[in-house]
Parts: sequence; structure tokens; C-alpha cells
Amino acid sequence: MTMKLFDLAGADPKRRFSPYCWTIRMALAHKELDVETIPWRFIDKEAIATSGQTKVPVLVHDDKWLFESWDIATYLEQTFPERPTLFGGAQGMALSKLYCNLASVIASQAIRLVLVDIYDHLTETDKVYFRETREQRFGMTLEQAVADRDARLQPFRDGLMPLRMTLKTQPFFGGDQPLYADYALFGVFQWARCISPFQLLAADDPIAHWRTRLLQAFDGLAQSAPGYD
Amino acid sequence: MTMKLFDLAGADPKRRFSPYCWTIRMALAHKELDVETIPWRFIDKEAIATSGQTKVPVLVHDDKWLFESWDIATYLEQTFPERPTLFGGAQGMALSKLYCNLASVIASQAIRLVLVDIYDHLTETDKVYFRETREQRFGMTLEQAVADRDARLQPFRDGLMPLRMTLKTQPFFGGDQPLYADYALFGVFQWARCISPFQLLAADDPIAHWRTRLLQAFDGLAQSAPGYD
Repeated sequence: MTMKLFDLAGADPKRRFSPYCWTIRMALAHKELDVETIPWRFIDKEAIATSGQTKVPVLVHDDKWLFESWDIATYLEQTFPERPTLFGGAQGMALSKLYCNLASVIASQAIRLVLVDIYDHLTETDKVYFRETREQRFGMTLEQAVADRDARLQPFRDGLMPLRMTLKTQPFFGGDQPLYADYALFGVFQWARCISPFQLLAADDPIAHWRTRLLQAFDGLAQSAPGYD
Repeated sequence: MTMKLFDLAGADPKRRFSPYCWTIRMALAHKELDVETIPWRFIDKEAIATSGQTKVPVLVHDDKWLFESWDIATYLEQTFPERPTLFGGAQGMALSKLYCNLASVIASQAIRLVLVDIYDHLTETDKVYFRETREQRFGMTLEQAVADRDARLQPFRDGLMPLRMTLKTQPFFGGDQPLYADYALFGVFQWARCISPFQLLAADDPIAHWRTRLLQAFDGLAQSAPGYD
């Protein structure tokens, strides 16, 4: 049975913009697994209630409802060990965990650069939900949260230095080929690219070149998604 | 033939404080390799001239002079494949590179917290060399460079969040046991601990607990070195 992935979408159901859903889509493609993606909005809590979760990604495989991107990825590795590895063994799996946490931290910084653009792409009902929950989280309006984004850009880029240094000496974090660590970080940049015209990366940044390589991977899976270039 | 490691030392030849030399000492212990460490000072360029380098670590194995911690580590892995792995295979090696770059960036931030303490522990001739080269690098006196270190401490600690998140869910970056990735990062904290009473980490930080586990590794190799607790 084809897997199903509940995938965060905007008013345009083709616009998918969860960093963690993108990570899982890339991981599924890496494992050469077909998936049906189901556009999901913030308020569609009922659709994923069986999982016990209120957030995506939620992946349905046979009768199993899987959630949390790390747990989904390790499930895929254990369930399909004969397919291309996402981690490169037990040690590679352990070493990949930091990449996921780096991705979370980078996403928490990047959101202050694109918050209002997310809002602009949502359905009307999601707009109400998003404004209320995010303004509560940040203690300010969406517009206030991004007001200083031009000033935040350079510090954000400076904070990516360890990624940049690494990608100067190898094409992917996983080496010659991407691994889950790459997809974990790529999700953040693909999320931003899908939802905002704000340029997180300078065009000549080695991180931008790495992003391009991943946009083109799997027959352009990520590049063909609605977004900004 | 026992290997020889040129190891940065203070006025007290037992005080060793290069982050990258500590990384290699831990990697050698991991590989169960004996090493003779030779106290080396900044001005001892002649002693390592055969390597073509002016900085340590420099490791001598038989007639080979090895340098750059990453190149030394990959040499050890390739030369002693039957001994405990530092990387966990080709993918683990690729995934480890980011850890080394993270360590470099963290060291470049931490040095502004301990710069004057390094100076205080040097030989008289190294003091002259260190003050001249570092004041040129930072464009200010050593004392000016650390003047605001109390204010810099919390941002420094905040920047370690991805490490902290990871060590909440696993004892080492390498998983249940440390790998080279652990030693690359540990070198920074051991360097600071050996040279400065300034507390980089709060006592209840999961990173501090991980540091303690590595201080105790290999019969307390790192803990027994002169330093501050």
C-alpha cells in the first residue's frame, strides 16, 4: 500500500512549506518509496487525530501512524534496510542527531525572517489560527516580528559558518551523496524557499550551491514545488 | 616505534592547552595507541620545521610527519582499521566534518572569554609572541578583548543549544560511545579548562555532564591534566 504523508499546505494546495515534511519527502525519495501527499492545514486537527498528534509530518504506512520526523526516518531505515541508507549505520545515525537539532535552531532563527510571508500564503481560516498562535508565541504582531529582518539577515548568515565551511570541502554533509543529515537541514531552506521571496542565502554561498544540488535531486522533486528562486 | 606528538604547553610543561592537540590525544587513546607528548611552545618553530608547519598538532609516526588534526585522524583510521573506529565508516567520516568546523567556530568565540588567561600561563618568550600576534589579530589589547567577557558568556552558551539538545537524548555525539566528533568538540572545552578558571559551562548543562564523561575516559587522561574545575 502506498504510504500517505500529511503535508502542510497553503491556500494553494500545491504550496507545501513544512521544513519537517520536506525532510521526510526527501528521505522517502532517497529510500525510493512512493508516497501520496495529502495537503493539510494547521486547523485540520481531526484528519490526523488517529496519530495522537496535532502537527505534521504524520506518515501512514499500512495501519501504522508515524510522527516526528526523526522517528519516521529511523522507522524507514529499520523497515527498509535493503534500500539506500539514510544514516550509514549506527554511528552515522547517532552523528545525524545533531544535524536535526541544528536544523531546528536554524528554523527558529529563520522564522523571524519569513513569518509574514507564511501568513500571506495561508487559507483564510489558517490565517486566523496562525496569527493568533504565532503572535502569542513571539509576544508581538507578525509584522513587528519581521520588521527588522534586513538587520537580522547578516547575523543569520554568519551563524551558518560551520555549514559553509563543511560544504567548501565536500558536496554534501553525508559526503559524495546526501544522507538524512542533508535532508534535515535542507528542509529549512526549502521551507523558506517555498513560502517567501526573502533571500536567506547569498547566491555565491556554498550553502546555496548545496541547496541547488538537493533541489535538483530525485528528478527535481523539490525544485518543481511552487516557491521562489 | 612510539609516536611523538608536539603538544602546545605553558610555562609549566605539564599544562597542555591546544584544543586540536587534545582532540588528537583523545583520538590516539581511542585507537589504543601509545604516544610520547613533547611540550612545545609557540616560538619553537624549528622543532617542527620538518613538517613544513608552524603550528601544532604535529604527529610523528615512523618517518612520517603528520599535521592538521583532521588529516591526522583520517590517517589513524586508515592506518589502524582493526582498532576501534573513530568515524564509523565512510558516511560517519563525512558526517564528522561538520563537528570539526563547529569546534573551530566555538573555539573562535571562546577565545574572547579566555584570552588573557592563556597569556598568564605562557613562558616569558611565548608571552611576547602571543601578545603581539593576538593583539594584531583582534585589533585590540588582550585585556580589551576579554573586558566584556561576562556579557559575552550567555550569548556563547545560547549558541551551544544544538549541542545541548543532542546531549539530552544521547550520552555522546557518537551515540553510546564517543567518536572523533566528540573529541573534536571536547578539545575546545578541555583547552579552556586547562588554561582558564572562567566557567564556560553552567554546572547543570548537559554539555558539562558530557565533558565530565570525556574527562574520565581512558583512565582520566584529560582529567589528570593540570587545569581548573
